[in-house]
Amino acid sequence: MSSKFVYSFGGEKAEGRADMKNLLGGKGANLAEMTNIGLPVPPGFSITTEVCTYHMDRHAYPDGLQHEVNSALSRVEDIIKAKFGDPENPLLVSVRSGARASMPGMMDTILNLGLNDTTVKGLIARTNNPRFAYDSYRRFVQMYGDVVLGVQAAHDKEADPFEAAIEELKHHRGVIHDVDLTADDLKELVKLFKAIVAKKSPIPFPEDPFDQLWGAIGAVFNSWMNDRAIAYRRLNSIPESWGTAVNVQAMVFGNMGDNCATGVAFTRNPASGEKHFYGEYLTNAQGEDVVAGIRTPKPISELKVDQPHAYADLEKTYRTLEKHFRDMQDLEFTIQDGKLWMLQTRNGKRTGIAAFRIAVEMVDEGMISPQEALMRVEPEMLNQLLRPIFDSVEKNKAIKEGKLLAKGLNAGPGAASGVIAFNAKKAVECRSHGIDSLLVRIETSPEDIQGMNAAVGILTARGGMTSHAALVARQMGKVCVAGCGGLDIDYHAGTLKVSGKTFHEGDFLSIDGSTGEVLEGNIKTLPSEIIQVLIDKTIDPAKSEMYRIYAKLMQWADSSRRLKIRTNADQPDQCQTARAFGAEGIGLCRTEHMFFGGERITAVREMILADDVEGRKKALAKLLPMQREDFLGIFRVMDGLPTNIRTLDPPLHEFLPHTENEIKHVAREMGKEIDAVKLKIASLHEENPMLGHRGCRLGIVYPEITEMQAQAIFEAAVIATKEGIAVHPEIMIPLVGFRKELELQAAVVRRIATEVFAREKVKIDYLVGTMIELPRAAITADQIAEVAEYFSFGTNDLTQTTMGISRDDSKGFIPYYVENNIMEFEPFQVIDQEGVGVLMEWAVQRGRATRPSLKVGICGEHGGEPKSVMFCHRLGLDYVSCSPFRIPIARLAAAQAVLTAK
Amino acid sequence: MSSKFVYSFGGEKAEGRADMKNLLGGKGANLAEMTNIGLPVPPGFSITTEVCTYHMDRHAYPDGLQHEVNSALSRVEDIIKAKFGDPENPLLVSVRSGARASMPGMMDTILNLGLNDTTVKGLIARTNNPRFAYDSYRRFVQMYGDVVLGVQAAHDKEADPFEAAIEELKHHRGVIHDVDLTADDLKELVKLFKAIVAKKSPIPFPEDPFDQLWGAIGAVFNSWMNDRAIAYRRLNSIPESWGTAVNVQAMVFGNMGDNCATGVAFTRNPASGEKHFYGEYLTNAQGEDVVAGIRTPKPISELKVDQPHAYADLEKTYRTLEKHFRDMQDLEFTIQDGKLWMLQTRNGKRTGIAAFRIAVEMVDEGMISPQEALMRVEPEMLNQLLRPIFDSVEKNKAIKEGKLLAKGLNAGPGAASGVIAFNAKKAVECRSHGIDSLLVRIETSPEDIQGMNAAVGILTARGGMTSHAALVARQMGKVCVAGCGGLDIDYHAGTLKVSGKTFHEGDFLSIDGSTGEVLEGNIKTLPSEIIQVLIDKTIDPAKSEMYRIYAKLMQWADSSRRLKIRTNADQPDQCQTARAFGAEGIGLCRTEHMFFGGERITAVREMILADDVEGRKKALAKLLPMQREDFLGIFRVMDGLPTNIRTLDPPLHEFLPHTENEIKHVAREMGKEIDAVKLKIASLHEENPMLGHRGCRLGIVYPEITEMQAQAIFEAAVIATKEGIAVHPEIMIPLVGFRKELELQAAVVRRIATEVFAREKVKIDYLVGTMIELPRAAITADQIAEVAEYFSFGTNDLTQTTMGISRDDSKGFIPYYVENNIMEFEPFQVIDQEGVGVLMEWAVQRGRATRPSLKVGICGEHGGEPKSVMFCHRLGLDYVSCSPFRIPIARLAAAQAVLTAK
Repeated sequence: MSSKFVYSFGGEKAEGRADMKNLLGGKGANLAEMTNIGLPVPPGFSITTEVCTYHMDRHAYPDGLQHEVNSALSRVEDIIKAKFGDPENPLLVSVRSGARASMPGMMDTILNLGLNDTTVKGLIARTNNPRFAYDSYRRFVQMYGDVVLGVQAAHDKEADPFEAAIEELKHHRGVIHDVDLTADDLKELVKLFKAIVAKKSPIPFPEDPFDQLWGAIGAVFNSWMNDRAIAYRRLNSIPESWGTAVNVQAMVFGNMGDNCATGVAFTRNPASGEKHFYGEYLTNAQGEDVVAGIRTPKPISELKVDQPHAYADLEKTYRTLEKHFRDMQDLEFTIQDGKLWMLQTRNGKRTGIAAFRIAVEMVDEGMISPQEALMRVEPEMLNQLLRPIFDSVEKNKAIKEGKLLAKGLNAGPGAASGVIAFNAKKAVECRSHGIDSLLVRIETSPEDIQGMNAAVGILTARGGMTSHAALVARQMGKVCVAGCGGLDIDYHAGTLKVSGKTFHEGDFLSIDGSTGEVLEGNIKTLPSEIIQVLIDKTIDPAKSEMYRIYAKLMQWADSSRRLKIRTNADQPDQCQTARAFGAEGIGLCRTEHMFFGGERITAVREMILADDVEGRKKALAKLLPMQREDFLGIFRVMDGLPTNIRTLDPPLHEFLPHTENEIKHVAREMGKEIDAVKLKIASLHEENPMLGHRGCRLGIVYPEITEMQAQAIFEAAVIATKEGIAVHPEIMIPLVGFRKELELQAAVVRRIATEVFAREKVKIDYLVGTMIELPRAAITADQIAEVAEYFSFGTNDLTQTTMGISRDDSKGFIPYYVENNIMEFEPFQVIDQEGVGVLMEWAVQRGRATRPSLKVGICGEHGGEPKSVMFCHRLGLDYVSCSPFRIPIARLAAAQAVLTAK
Repeated sequence: MSSKFVYSFGGEKAEGRADMKNLLGGKGANLAEMTNIGLPVPPGFSITTEVCTYHMDRHAYPDGLQHEVNSALSRVEDIIKAKFGDPENPLLVSVRSGARASMPGMMDTILNLGLNDTTVKGLIARTNNPRFAYDSYRRFVQMYGDVVLGVQAAHDKEADPFEAAIEELKHHRGVIHDVDLTADDLKELVKLFKAIVAKKSPIPFPEDPFDQLWGAIGAVFNSWMNDRAIAYRRLNSIPESWGTAVNVQAMVFGNMGDNCATGVAFTRNPASGEKHFYGEYLTNAQGEDVVAGIRTPKPISELKVDQPHAYADLEKTYRTLEKHFRDMQDLEFTIQDGKLWMLQTRNGKRTGIAAFRIAVEMVDEGMISPQEALMRVEPEMLNQLLRPIFDSVEKNKAIKEGKLLAKGLNAGPGAASGVIAFNAKKAVECRSHGIDSLLVRIETSPEDIQGMNAAVGILTARGGMTSHAALVARQMGKVCVAGCGGLDIDYHAGTLKVSGKTFHEGDFLSIDGSTGEVLEGNIKTLPSEIIQVLIDKTIDPAKSEMYRIYAKLMQWADSSRRLKIRTNADQPDQCQTARAFGAEGIGLCRTEHMFFGGERITAVREMILADDVEGRKKALAKLLPMQREDFLGIFRVMDGLPTNIRTLDPPLHEFLPHTENEIKHVAREMGKEIDAVKLKIASLHEENPMLGHRGCRLGIVYPEITEMQAQAIFEAAVIATKEGIAVHPEIMIPLVGFRKELELQAAVVRRIATEVFAREKVKIDYLVGTMIELPRAAITADQIAEVAEYFSFGTNDLTQTTMGISRDDSKGFIPYYVENNIMEFEPFQVIDQEGVGVLMEWAVQRGRATRPSLKVGICGEHGGEPKSVMFCHRLGLDYVSCSPFRIPIARLAAAQAVLTAK
């Protein structure tokens, strides 16, 4: 801990600087910076974040703090020419919290501190404005009572006691607006407010300004540990150890008359990113009035008319600030008696769209470098550029009309409206009639794939962010709200009950997969411009400003990144989308997704239920031509790019028939007794299918499955090659734990390749690799790399096994764990670097120790999550692979990884 | 590879020694050793194992081998004064394989090599015994045809063609025994045999003795890679790289007349271990006749009368050999014309009981040290000392009568007979009537515990060596045959169908848990003497020789070992048994096993199905006094020893009611609707319960469960302390993956401890530790050790998660994997040192880096498996914990670990 606790600013110089945010908080550092660059900042001082952490640990202040505060206060008194607590000429101050990052959960502001029954008289004398003085006084008592002394409504339904007192007085006086209350009324309110404090707080309202000050300082520090602040930190990954600073600053008044004003402004439009000065202000008001929404603020442009001089200053100031901070600024200002005072500047929050526009335009303007632009945007924000969105007017109207039904997980961004389809068949039927449908299911299973594809959106009652519905939706780029517990779906009755209303198949719902909202009715959606350019090709790229911005960012990202970006895709159309988004290959083609659908599923079931290898081979022979067609379609799209195909992975019973009818059908196809089929199905039941007979364990016990898949792949590759297509197949063996497993499966693949190439007189280069998705595989990576030509981390399964947590069964505790900080992030969203990551690092190092040329990628869901992408970069991976719609995100994150490392 | 390929022996000196087994094989090294210590060994030579590995790699012999063989053969000729292939005075040799370890799968012996139509005449001239000569010749052709040229029956049902020819000839001659065939008959047989070879083998029978010799040498080397040898090596963990040696030795003949004999003998009784010369011989016979069982051999004692001079030599020789090799020897000898020749000596195979007796008595005799005695016994063999066994006469009789019904896994050693009980209730009922029952289930679940305890044995149709049935049986010391696929159990019909027979409840079955056999009827069992001394106390220890041997071995083991041995036990009686077997504490007390049984299970179900914390607390309050009693009972038995209690671990739905009646009962108890209870049950369903909401995840989301358990433990500890009992509780938190999890649970435990101690004014030292059973726990052991005072490896779960293999679901591929050498051992039996073991090592090192005093143990099933115990020793663990009946095994393995390391 440094020996200096307090940093003064004001009088055109400051002890702090913008780069001292860690010590002074964002607000304090920027107040100092503004002072130093000559902007008009009311004098004040910041108490450092170190004092906060000291106070947290020991529930005491460090020695010397009081002395430093007093000195700093004297300095303010000297500059302002007023004295704290002086009955004649009292200095009033504001007290504000200010952490390294803006934190809405914390105590915000106390204004007018220093007022009491004596000093209020001095204020009246100096301003000759008793109404203003008493208004300031009553506001101070109210804020202090609320924030420092904790005076609150007893329960949710009770009105705020201070507000109630105002209302009562207004009623009594027969007036409607606060401004209609007289100075005497306000003086009366001060008394009433103090009485409320005396009644509701164990601590009386302190008359001594110094007691007021220390009370406020303590309240700021304590607010760092209040529930809201803790919750906010958790959500935003802000360490508790940062602490907050306290800013004490001489008051300036926007409410002393009509030549006073207060306002907030942005140097550019925070919603659209457009380059124009944007903001609003109120004449004769204090800061909180702007926010409170009682009076309607005026657009900033009117200030030019109202107060041309101050406006000119403000305009000069905002340009100075943006240029100085090299980013869009969010300003707070007050005009007192026509003079502009700056109370805050910070980098302005903005929508994703604004962020991209501002970053790109600032590069255009020569203000920042392309690399800086890349670091100015959050990769996740790209979602906002890509997804259809609700027309905001329509959506707000619907909400106002009470049509918001429930909220689930925002599992697949974007907005979609359609009629309810309770099953895949219905969704397919709707599409064939050109009707948009939402597939509404308790949860989805692989059998719903066709329906998910046919629907415009998916809504489930059960399942998390990585449930089947969410996973497939993201891969398909479908809008999805998952795990919406409020839904009561009755397939039998064909009803969906939610929020006291009952809906039937064919009724319209609208879902917002970016927020998780489920709404009644058909709300109009707007397609993303980028999608229209890239995928739908309905907009000429040259005519789209949005596309220009997207393309520039992507171009800069691509020239910065080292990681290649591949995609997880199983169908030619998905591959096409992925290529449009910049995929440089397929990182995971799941062959099992091809196993559903009419004829196929029957053949698959025959294969599983066969009693012997002949029966299996017979069924596999039916699948061979279909799989070959699948791969051929993919190879054609992926022309020139590597295509990594995984052999069959899931436990076989995922494919089994469930209904009596399906069982009957399969039994008939196989010429077997229904009971025999049922018995076989029962015998395939597993207690823990995730850890059961799946992955390469299938191909090892039933090598004919791998044989068929390899044959389909190589025969398709041969056909494509003969068509002049450049094919680069990679065959990946899943769930390997032992070197020998891979050895056996690789031998099958290579044998089939040799056979096909000899027969077809074509030779195609290919690789055989493995998933690293079991701890044992990571641990023995040196041995496995003797056989594997590449590794691909299956971080979904690796997370499940490393943590011993089933993704499907984690709903009972993972939300609790994340909420209670037992784990930092949902581990199926963000790679657990301390656990899973250690195994990954080990695997990369050991694998490359054996085979220096070993290619390593990731194809788990984490491959499209920015933090995880950056981690993969640090581990030295060659590529990440993610669902098509996350490719731009991964491209950006991969670039940021390089830039962050510099 | 050394430059010498052939080692000669004979003429009172040899180039090899007993310690050259790696190079010369066991047989060759011991033939050399016997020669060197002056025993009468026919001269010969060994071709080294290095030649075998060279031959395997390159399918060729090293340069110079032929020269060395010729030289060695010349040396033999010089000693014997006969010449290989000489028509007048032919040298005949035997050719035998001989690997480092005895390997039944390999080619064994070819005798009389060197005979052909010419040399046989020389043999007749020299021995004046045409019948002997032609008998030797036909035996040689038969052996050579069979072993070297691969002449065999065309299919299983065809007789051996050579034997068929003999039978036909005997029939034709009208004689019954081989010995009744004349010299001419035998000469005829040689012709017939050669005709068989010519017909069945592509290679003709070689007349040239050198061709014969090289053919035989090649056959020995090739037999190293035959299927039987490969299978044997896999079963016995013998590396392929060892190779085998070939021993070529001058023939001596036990079949040249009545002053000739051949026999095998043991220097002590290999079945009982008693110290008397034990063996049998045949007059006028060759070695194979003793083994073939056509003639009944005579006990060795009669040789003293038959051939007193040779017997005296043999007696002197066996004493010399036992003294020289310091172990019980298994000898082969031949007497030719009254002269003793030694053909082999090796350490004799013996039963477990014999091994223990011999080891202890040799220490008594001053022949070996106690440490050597410990290394002479296999820990697993202790099972034979502890388990009840079938009266072998009765069992053999039953098998002959066709009463062997099926074979399952030998999951719980020992023998048991009882009436069939298809459910726990029936088993309990049987016991109350004093009837022994076998609990016969498709598979068992925790609800069967009472029945498993009441039955004398457990038989299941499904489940592996570590299934619930096997696990609990071993812990209870019950006989168990698990996973007996041949059983067709129909609970509804109350029938067991097996091997074409149908059994009903009440019918007698007998199961041998040491072999997996299931037999019809009530076969008499004999209790183990050790059990009668230690547990039943029905035999005075001073009067039991078996106990004396056991106790001595255990005493030596205890003074050698460093590892402490604890037990996994949940009930006072189990604890008592464990202490009798030498447990030094409890390593795992599973509290959930206490949760079953009438009142308890209802309270447990109430707790699980409660809607809120109040409901749970109400139900937990009912459980508290019962759990307290449980722990008190255990503390009383464990007086003075540490008692490690694990908090609730299994997923809650394991406790849920299944039947309509049970659900009704619980609903009534809770005052709830049946449908509401059913809904709750459904909501607790998990896809992969092993990876679900279990372990500390329960105690974290529902801290009141941990509170109740901690309260029961500490209150019981207080009562016991007040009774004067020394209590050392250790509270273990299961399934920890994150430091914070342990932190939260440890805080609950410590808070409750403080409360109880303050209330009761007693202070008891206790420890809080954790299971290391997830890869993430092992990886972050350094962090976890900041909180944990001890670690206990839960290697069952650690194996499941590290390998991604559910123990319950591994039946589809693990047998295949072990059989095909994909994994060396069944990983739930023997710790996977390369995978799981690496995580264990990491955890020990990282844990102790944080907390050097960290106590580390293991409480997975592996804690009683010798290879795993030795691994735990090497890792530096403090203790292993196993089921009571495996404690002696663990004590011995722990001692061997120390002795092996020296």
